[in-house]
Amino acid sequence: MERLPFDVIEDLKRFLREDIRSGDLTSNITIPVDAKGKATIYAKSKAVLAGMEEVIAIAELTGLQHDLHVFEGNWVNPGEGVLTLTGQARILLAIERVSLNIVQRMSGIATKTYNIVHEAKKMNPKVRVAATRKTTPGFRYFDKRAVKIGGGDTHRYALDDMVLIKNNHISVVGSVGEAVRLARREVSFSKKISCEVRTLQEALEAIKAGADIVLLDNFSPQDVAGVHKILTEKGLRNKIILEASGGIDQDNIKAYAESGCDVLSSGALTHSYESSDFNMLLTIE
Amino acid sequence: MERLPFDVIEDLKRFLREDIRSGDLTSNITIPVDAKGKATIYAKSKAVLAGMEEVIAIAELTGLQHDLHVFEGNWVNPGEGVLTLTGQARILLAIERVSLNIVQRMSGIATKTYNIVHEAKKMNPKVRVAATRKTTPGFRYFDKRAVKIGGGDTHRYALDDMVLIKNNHISVVGSVGEAVRLARREVSFSKKISCEVRTLQEALEAIKAGADIVLLDNFSPQDVAGVHKILTEKGLRNKIILEASGGIDQDNIKAYAESGCDVLSSGALTHSYESSDFNMLLTIE
Amino acid sequence: MERLPFDVIEDLKRFLREDIRSGDLTSNITIPVDAKGKATIYAKSKAVLAGMEEVIAIAELTGLQHDLHVFEGNWVNPGEGVLTLTGQARILLAIERVSLNIVQRMSGIATKTYNIVHEAKKMNPKVRVAATRKTTPGFRYFDKRAVKIGGGDTHRYALDDMVLIKNNHISVVGSVGEAVRLARREVSFSKKISCEVRTLQEALEAIKAGADIVLLDNFSPQDVAGVHKILTEKGLRNKIILEASGGIDQDNIKAYAESGCDVLSSGALTHSYESSDFNMLLTIE
Amino acid sequence: MERLPFDVIEDLKRFLREDIRSGDLTSNITIPVDAKGKATIYAKSKAVLAGMEEVIAIAELTGLQHDLHVFEGNWVNPGEGVLTLTGQARILLAIERVSLNIVQRMSGIATKTYNIVHEAKKMNPKVRVAATRKTTPGFRYFDKRAVKIGGGDTHRYALDDMVLIKNNHISVVGSVGEAVRLARREVSFSKKISCEVRTLQEALEAIKAGADIVLLDNFSPQDVAGVHKILTEKGLRNKIILEASGGIDQDNIKAYAESGCDVLSSGALTHSYESSDFNMLLTIE
Amino acid sequence: MERLPFDVIEDLKRFLREDIRSGDLTSNITIPVDAKGKATIYAKSKAVLAGMEEVIAIAELTGLQHDLHVFEGNWVNPGEGVLTLTGQARILLAIERVSLNIVQRMSGIATKTYNIVHEAKKMNPKVRVAATRKTTPGFRYFDKRAVKIGGGDTHRYALDDMVLIKNNHISVVGSVGEAVRLARREVSFSKKISCEVRTLQEALEAIKAGADIVLLDNFSPQDVAGVHKILTEKGLRNKIILEASGGIDQDNIKAYAESGCDVLSSGALTHSYESSDFNMLLTIE
Amino acid sequence: MERLPFDVIEDLKRFLREDIRSGDLTSNITIPVDAKGKATIYAKSKAVLAGMEEVIAIAELTGLQHDLHVFEGNWVNPGEGVLTLTGQARILLAIERVSLNIVQRMSGIATKTYNIVHEAKKMNPKVRVAATRKTTPGFRYFDKRAVKIGGGDTHRYALDDMVLIKNNHISVVGSVGEAVRLARREVSFSKKISCEVRTLQEALEAIKAGADIVLLDNFSPQDVAGVHKILTEKGLRNKIILEASGGIDQDNIKAYAESGCDVLSSGALTHSYESSDFNMLLTIE
Repeated sequence: MERLPFDVIEDLKRFLREDIRSGDLTSNITIPVDAKGKATIYAKSKAVLAGMEEVIAIAELTGLQHDLHVFEGNWVNPGEGVLTLTGQARILLAIERVSLNIVQRMSGIATKTYNIVHEAKKMNPKVRVAATRKTTPGFRYFDKRAVKIGGGDTHRYALDDMVLIKNNHISVVGSVGEAVRLARREVSFSKKISCEVRTLQEALEAIKAGADIVLLDNFSPQDVAGVHKILTEKGLRNKIILEASGGIDQDNIKAYAESGCDVLSSGALTHSYESSDFNMLLTIE
Repeated sequence: MERLPFDVIEDLKRFLREDIRSGDLTSNITIPVDAKGKATIYAKSKAVLAGMEEVIAIAELTGLQHDLHVFEGNWVNPGEGVLTLTGQARILLAIERVSLNIVQRMSGIATKTYNIVHEAKKMNPKVRVAATRKTTPGFRYFDKRAVKIGGGDTHRYALDDMVLIKNNHISVVGSVGEAVRLARREVSFSKKISCEVRTLQEALEAIKAGADIVLLDNFSPQDVAGVHKILTEKGLRNKIILEASGGIDQDNIKAYAESGCDVLSSGALTHSYESSDFNMLLTIE
Repeated sequence: MERLPFDVIEDLKRFLREDIRSGDLTSNITIPVDAKGKATIYAKSKAVLAGMEEVIAIAELTGLQHDLHVFEGNWVNPGEGVLTLTGQARILLAIERVSLNIVQRMSGIATKTYNIVHEAKKMNPKVRVAATRKTTPGFRYFDKRAVKIGGGDTHRYALDDMVLIKNNHISVVGSVGEAVRLARREVSFSKKISCEVRTLQEALEAIKAGADIVLLDNFSPQDVAGVHKILTEKGLRNKIILEASGGIDQDNIKAYAESGCDVLSSGALTHSYESSDFNMLLTIE
Repeated sequence: MERLPFDVIEDLKRFLREDIRSGDLTSNITIPVDAKGKATIYAKSKAVLAGMEEVIAIAELTGLQHDLHVFEGNWVNPGEGVLTLTGQARILLAIERVSLNIVQRMSGIATKTYNIVHEAKKMNPKVRVAATRKTTPGFRYFDKRAVKIGGGDTHRYALDDMVLIKNNHISVVGSVGEAVRLARREVSFSKKISCEVRTLQEALEAIKAGADIVLLDNFSPQDVAGVHKILTEKGLRNKIILEASGGIDQDNIKAYAESGCDVLSSGALTHSYESSDFNMLLTIE
Repeated sequence: MERLPFDVIEDLKRFLREDIRSGDLTSNITIPVDAKGKATIYAKSKAVLAGMEEVIAIAELTGLQHDLHVFEGNWVNPGEGVLTLTGQARILLAIERVSLNIVQRMSGIATKTYNIVHEAKKMNPKVRVAATRKTTPGFRYFDKRAVKIGGGDTHRYALDDMVLIKNNHISVVGSVGEAVRLARREVSFSKKISCEVRTLQEALEAIKAGADIVLLDNFSPQDVAGVHKILTEKGLRNKIILEASGGIDQDNIKAYAESGCDVLSSGALTHSYESSDFNMLLTIE
Repeated sequence: MERLPFDVIEDLKRFLREDIRSGDLTSNITIPVDAKGKATIYAKSKAVLAGMEEVIAIAELTGLQHDLHVFEGNWVNPGEGVLTLTGQARILLAIERVSLNIVQRMSGIATKTYNIVHEAKKMNPKVRVAATRKTTPGFRYFDKRAVKIGGGDTHRYALDDMVLIKNNHISVVGSVGEAVRLARREVSFSKKISCEVRTLQEALEAIKAGADIVLLDNFSPQDVAGVHKILTEKGLRNKIILEASGGIDQDNIKAYAESGCDVLSSGALTHSYESSDFNMLLTIE
C-alpha cells in the first residue's frame, strides 16, 4: 500500500503467479540460488513512460531493490534506461516478462493518450480526452492509470461510478426527461448523472431534468458544435458538461476538439494502442 | 467446467466484478427487476470470430440463455449476428461491456494470427506461427486461446511449461552444451528443452547436448536459412525443431516462412493486434 | 447475480462459512440427511423489513425454495411471517443464524433510517438523510442497502466514489480554493467534488472554485441556516448541494431539516441503530 | 501473525479494500506522496478500550509505526489519546475510517459487556456472561474478542465448536435423553454437549444422559433458581454447567445472576450495543 | 452444501484446479466436446469405503450424474463397483485422477482406522481410538472424515477446538495445577480442557484443578493401567476422560485398550496408512 | 518468493490457517505474548531430509529466524537436529504441527524415492524413476518436490503439462497412430506427446506417428525388455523415450530397471510411503 491500493497488489501477485506458476523451470536449474544480479529496463522506442509504480511494487513484493531513473509521464528515448532492479538473480529472471508486459502496455497507452490529448489541446486547451470501459478485462486499473499518466481523464472505473443513461434505459423508462428525473430521485446525491441523447430536443430535456452531463453519442463534430452553439445561446451551456463519444480517435480528434465540447471519450485509447517497446538487460554476478 | 476449466471461470467472475463492482447503478434504477430482454452480438468489422466460449460461460454463470450463430474460428462480416443471449434485462446490460471487451480482443488476436499464419503457410505449409509470453497480464489464457483459434501455436503458458535456456542462463552455466546437459539431467523427461543460440556453432553444441528445440533469436531470414541448410547437410535437421524469433511480424513473415524454420514466434500476435469491432444490440420486453 | 452483484454473493458465502465452518455438528448428528423442513422468518418487533434479497440469495446458494410474503421496505408487525424457506432440514438449520443476523441488522438500520427520514421530511420534504462510511467493516454493502430501503441516501461506498476534501487536505494544500481547484483539475469529470468548510468565507471560496457540494461539518442548525440564507441572497445557493454533518441524530434532525440544507449525513444510521427482532420457526417432516 | 491469526489479517485487508477500493481519490490528489504525518486516536466517550491489536495490525500491514498509550480492557475517558500512528500521510488518511470503525464497535461491545458483567458479578462473583452467535456477519472474530476484553465469555465461534441440542433436534430424535445419548456416541470426546431443556424433567434426563451443559432457554430468573435448587438437592448440580438464555440484558441481569446459574448468555452484547465514540487527529508535516 | 460445508466445496474446486490447470490437453484434443460417457469406480483391494460424498460433490460441481452402489463405511471387495458417474466424457476424464486420489486416501485411512478400532474394541468395547493433527496439510477435513467413517474419533480439527496443555505450556506457567486453573479461568465454558501429565502426581493435580481430560503421553500400557487403577481407587476416575497417546499403532493397540483408558490417540491413523486401490473404468459413447 | 513460488506461499498460509484457525487457544492463554523461544527440529528415524524450504518459508512468513543445519537431500539419523527456529514462543508453538506434518511427509517420500531410485540405478545407472499424479489433493507441489529431492523425476504436475494418450482416448479416435497424429497436429510444438500402448504393434505405430514417449502400461519386466529389444533391433529405440508403469514398487523395481526402459513410473512413491519421524523440541525463555 506504500504506493498502490491493496487490490492492485493482489492483481500484481496474480500476474506473477500466472507467469511463474509452479516455478521458473529454467532459472531454477541453471542459476545458483544465491546468485545476485542487476537488471535495467531500457526503452527501445520513443514513449511516454508508465508502469514504474507497478514494477517497483513487484520489486518490493519479491525482495528486490530498485533505482528509478525516469519518472512516469516523461518521454523516454530508445536506449534510455528507466529503472534498475537488483537482488536475487533468479527472481530478476522470474519477474522480467511480467514487468515488461506491464510497462509496454501502460506506456503504449500513455503514449497514445499523450499524443491524442496534445492534438486536442492545440484546438481547445480546456478539452478533456477520456477513456472508456473498453479495457482489457482484469487490467482496467492499469489501463486507466496509463490514461491518466498520458494526460487523459479516467472516466468510470465501473458501473457504480456514475449514472450513465443510455438508449436502452431511456426506451424502458419512456423519455430522457423521465429517466433523468428517476435517476435524480433514486441515486445518491454524491453521484453524477450523465445522459446519452440523440437530438437537441433530448439534450434540452436532459438539462431541464437535472442531468450533470449530456453525452452526444455518434454525433459528427459539426453536430456537436451545433448543440454547443444552441445551448450557449440559450444560456444552458454552463449548466452541464458536454461529452462526445463514438469513433473518436487520432484522425478526428482535432475536429471534435474545436466543437466546443468539454469531454471527448475515446475507446481507442485502451483498445487500439500499440505497445511501446522495452527490454530488460540483466547481468548476473 | 462444461467448456472451460475452473480457473477460467474464476477469471470471468473477476472480470465481471471489476466492471459491475457494487452494482449497475443505472440499470438498477431504470430497468424493472423482472424485465426480460434479448441481446445479439454483431460484428462491425471483418474478423475471425473468437471469445464465444467465454461469453457463453458468462451467460451460464448469470442465468442467461444463449443461441450461437457462428462457430469460433470462422470469418464474420460487418453486420453479422454471432450470438444471441436472452434473459433478465438488467443482467444483459450488466454483462454487455465485459463480453464485448473479451470478444473484441480475442477476435482481434485471432484475426491477426489468421492473417499472419495464412501468409506464412503460402511459403511453407508446415510452418507454425507461435505466440510468446508477451500477453496482457491476467489475460494470458484468453490471448493464447485466441491465437489457437486463429491457427497459431500457443507456445509456453508459463515458466514451468518447458525449459527455455536464454543467454543469461548460458553465461552463468558457461556454455550452451553445459546448459543443455544440465537441464537434460535436472528436468523431468516429460519436458522439452529449448535453447537460444547465437551462432551455428552453438546450435551444433545444443543439438549434440540433446536439445529438443533450437531457438534462433534475432537472426535474419537469410541467417536462419543458412543454419537450416547446414543442419540439413549434416543430417541433424530432423533431430530438432528449429524456431526463430525476434521482430517477426506481418511484414517479414514470408521471408522467415521460407527460411526452412519449423516455428516462427511472434510477440506481435498478442501485443500489437487491433481489437475487432463488435457491438451488442439489446431489446427489452 | 439474479438479484445481487457477484461480490455480494461471495460475501454471503463467507458469512455462511464463518458460522458453519467444518459443519453443523449438532444437526449432522441429530437430523437425517434426507429430512425435509419448512422454516418461516417472523418479525418479533415492529420494523421496516430489509435483508430479504440476501436471505433469498442464501436460499438459492444452498438449494432451498423460498416464498416471500412481504416486500422489503414495508413495515412489519410482531408475529408477521415475512419469508418461508423449504428444503433439506439440515440446511435450514445451518443457515438460520446467519440469515437472522442479516435480517435483524438490516431491518434495524432500515427502521432507524425510516424514522429519521420521516421526521426530517416533515420539516422539509426535499431534504435527504444520508449515511456515512461509519459502517461495520466487511458489511458496508448491506448497511448501505438497508439505509436505501429505509429511504436514506447511501452516500460514498468507498474512498474512490467522490472527492471529499477535509481539513487535513486543505491545510496541506493551503486553502479551500486551492484544494478545490486542484481536485477539479486532477479528478475525472465523472466525479463530484465535495469540500468541508469551517466558515462562510470558505464556503464562498469553495463555490467559486467549482465545488459541487459544500459540507458544513459540526455547524449548529442555526449556523447552517445562516449559511443557507446568505448563499441564497448571493444567488449562489442553487450552484451547490449543501450538506451538514456531525452529531446528527433523532433528537436534532428536525432542527437541521428546517435549516435549508439539502443533505443531512448521519453516522448514527449505521453505528447506533438497534437490531430489529426476528426469529425463525422450523418444522421438520 | 505477530499477534493475530492469519485469517484475521485477511479480514483486515478485506476491510481496507472495502473502504479504499481503487484508491483514496482525495488524498492522492491533495497530499504529496512523501508527506509524513502523525495520527492519534482519542476517546470521545467513556469506554472500555478495544480494537488496539487490530489497528496495530493494520499499521504493520501498511508500513506505519505505532505507539500504544493504553492497553485494551482499560477504561478511557473523553479526550484521552490511546494510540499514535506515524508514517506516510496518505496512508494515515486511507486507514482512518476503517480503524475507527473497528475501535468504535469493539469498544462499544467491550463497554457494554464490562457493565453487564460488573452488575452480574455483584450478585454472583462466579457467574459468567457469555455472548451468542448473534454477531454481525463477517465480523464475528472481532465481536467475540471485544466480549472477551470486556470480561465476557466468547461461547461458540461456529456451529462446529460444541454440540448444542435445541428443540428442533430433540423433536426429530424423540427425546432429550435420546438426543444427548446420540450426540455422546457420535461426537468426538473433545467436544462438550449442551442441551436446551423446557422442563425440570428434561433437565434431569439430559444430565442422566451425560450432557455437559444444561441450557434453560426463556426461563424466568425464578424458574432458573428453582431448577438450580432442585438439582442441588438431588446432588446433581456439580455434574453440569447450568446456562440461561433468552432476553437477558442490562435490566434483568442481576435477577438472573442471583439465580444460581453458571452462565448467562446474552445476544444483546453483540446486537444491541452502542458504538463508543473515538476520533483520529492527524497532523501532516 | 447439499452434503458438504462450503469450505469443503472450495477445497474440492482447488483440488480440481491443481490437476486440470489450464485444461486437460489430451482429452481436449482427442475427445469430441459432446461425447458422453459412463465411468464406474471399482475397488481393486479390500477396503472400508470412503470418499463417496466428495466424488458426488465433484460430480455435482461439474454437471455429472451419479449413481451410488455402496454406502461409505462398508467393506468393499476387489472388483466391486462403488459409484457410477455419467455425463460429458471430457469431464469424466478430467476428474478421474482427483476423484481416485481422494477415494484411495480416504478409504485407506478408513480401513486402517476400522481395523485398529476393531482390535481395540475386542479388549474394551467402550474405548475410543482417536486421530491426531498429524494429517496432510490442506487435507485435514478429509483425513478426519475418513477416520470417522472407519469408526474413529476425530479429535481436534484445529488449535482452537479445545485447550490442550502440553509440557511447554506447563513449564512456562509453573505447574500442571496452575496451568489448568489458568485455562479454566480464561477459556470459554464451552471448551474442554485437556492436560498432558508425566506422573500420577500431575494427573491428580490436573483433576483437582478441573481438567476434563488427562492425557498420558508416552506411558506404557502398564503405566496407563496403573494410573487408571489408582484414580479408580481414589474415586476420581469418573471425573475425567483418560487419554493415552504416543506411538500407539496396530501392534500395541490391544495392550493399550485393556489399560482402562477411555481414548487412545494414534497419529498413525493419518500418517502411516496405506492407500486403498481403486480404479475408474470409462466407456465413451 | 525468496525460494518458493507465490502459489506455494499461498498454500503454506492456507495450511497454517487450517491448523490455527481462530487462534492457538492453549498458547494464547499460557504463554506470555512477549516470551521468546528456540525450537529445533530433530529426526527421530533415518531419513532423506526434505521440507526445509517449506519450514523456512513458514518462518519467514511468521517473523521467525532460522538456522539450517542439514541441507535437503541428505540422510539424517535419529537424534540429528536439522533446523533451529527462534522468535516469539507463541508462534513457534503455533507452527509446530504444520511444520512437522510437512517435513514428515516430504521426508517420507524423499526417503522412499531415494531407496527405490538407488535400487533401480544398481541395475541401470541411466534409468529414471518418476512419480505419477497419484498425490494427495492440494499437496502435489510438495509431493513432487519431495520426489525430486529423493532423486526421482517429477513427471506431469497437471493435465496440461504433456499430452498423454491413454486407451480411452485411443478408442475414441480409432487408433494409436491416428491419436498421435492428431495430437501432433493440435498441440503446441513445446509439448511432448506420450502414448500408452498395449502391443508392440501399437508401439511401432506410435513411433511412426511421431510420439516422443511410448508408455508400456502393465507390461511385465520381461515384456518391456522384449519391446526394448525389438525397437533396438529396428533402429527405433533412440527415437523415443520408453516408459513403463503399473504396479512398480520396491519389490519389482530391479526387474524393471534391467528391462532397458528409460523411465519407470511409480504411483507408490507418493501414495504408499511411510512418513518419516521428526519432532520439535522447544525451549521458552
